[in-house]
Amino acid sequence: MDKEYFRNRVSVRNYEKRHIPESLLDNILERAMRAPTCGNMQLYSVVITRDPERLRRLAKEHFNQPAASGADVILTICADFNRFSEWCEASDAKPGYNNFHSFIMALTDAVIYSQQIVTIAEMEGLGTCYLGTVNYNARQISELLELPDLVVPVASISLGYPASSPAPCERLPLEAIKHNETYRKDSREQILNLFKSKDDFPDNRKFVEENGKKSLAQVFTDIRYPESVNTTVSESFISLLKDKGFLK
Amino acid sequence: MDKEYFRNRVSVRNYEKRHIPESLLDNILERAMRAPTCGNMQLYSVVITRDPERLRRLAKEHFNQPAASGADVILTICADFNRFSEWCEASDAKPGYNNFHSFIMALTDAVIYSQQIVTIAEMEGLGTCYLGTVNYNARQISELLELPDLVVPVASISLGYPASSPAPCERLPLEAIKHNETYRKDSREQILNLFKSKDDFPDNRKFVEENGKKSLAQVFTDIRYPESVNTTVSESFISLLKDKGFLK
Repeated sequence: MDKEYFRNRVSVRNYEKRHIPESLLDNILERAMRAPTCGNMQLYSVVITRDPERLRRLAKEHFNQPAASGADVILTICADFNRFSEWCEASDAKPGYNNFHSFIMALTDAVIYSQQIVTIAEMEGLGTCYLGTVNYNARQISELLELPDLVVPVASISLGYPASSPAPCERLPLEAIKHNETYRKDSREQILNLFKSKDDFPDNRKFVEENGKKSLAQVFTDIRYPESVNTTVSESFISLLKDKGFLK
Repeated sequence: MDKEYFRNRVSVRNYEKRHIPESLLDNILERAMRAPTCGNMQLYSVVITRDPERLRRLAKEHFNQPAASGADVILTICADFNRFSEWCEASDAKPGYNNFHSFIMALTDAVIYSQQIVTIAEMEGLGTCYLGTVNYNARQISELLELPDLVVPVASISLGYPASSPAPCERLPLEAIKHNETYRKDSREQILNLFKSKDDFPDNRKFVEENGKKSLAQVFTDIRYPESVNTTVSESFISLLKDKGFLK
């Protein structure tokens, strides 16, 4: 069963109108805490949004994508050095975690914890979807959830009972991502070959046509993840890291 | 079985002198690729180190901690926007991923993939351990593995057949990390209460004594993760991000 699960899992963006019992959610969040964590510091927190009015406001910050607006619960997992620093100060120790390296440690911890939640939740029959939009409106989400210093939202997961079972989308062949001993430099031709199954995937061909583009890559660079947006989000995220004390 | 696994898993730092079959490793890396990934871009790569001489050199960059120097294999998982950008250029599209937001997207993707590897590998009976030191010597590791622009190492996982089954260490109670609707501000007293099981954990009390400190927190702030080191690593990591093209 495990082996089948890992081979077949998919993210689910449509959910039944049915509540996840609080006890099940607690059970998932608690088991996930056994995930690896840097120096056993557990540099993460999770804010649970399930109140309908708050869900509506949070979904808006995620651009009302269906996975957000139709979720029973949204979890916002945060890189958190606040709790640990408070403990240090209460223990006659001087914390030194208002820096970029500490942010990266906490971010890594938070994402490991997030993925453990996803795996356990899916094995319990729930549907999950990461909302990549968490970085785009990190400041607004931060305000909505009343996050203090040294706490930054880094992953959002929508949860619900699946209303459909989507077909898996394509992945690159293993050779594309795997390097033996040193990083292999592929030629343009080799790269195109590695991406061939992606370029040829029927849904992807449809995106290209619908958007009047010449290649799938242009759908990414011109529409989905354009440089102008990436630059703007970079600036706003760096500004948030400064305000939260993680960057000078 | 799954439920038991998640409740009981521990990181393993001591390994048998026994090789992991290449087919098993490939199988793990391939199944893990079904993990969620931002926009299905798969913004990660994995460099496999198993050649004994290279393992020795890589372990040195991880300060020769036993989990590194005794590993059968070390996986270095990288945030990678190089492959995707090359594909864009080969497809008549202009990539715009040389910025901080793109780094955070790729880092998140790479850590999700890493944690999926850990879960699958452990379910296959392997022992794993994240080497948090990957950030400390990221530049040296980057040179050793010959990483190109827009590729930065963000997670290292040592793998081997377990030579021992360590007892699980303590975790905070769920209340410590869980917040309903908004982030709860705990008082100093509440914080100390949430950390009580950690402060009282026998191994932790021993660390405090052995190091002649007044509190466990001081072991972290004065010895394990002191501000001076965090500041130095922050600077070197930021400098690497600039050199690799992820920061202006």
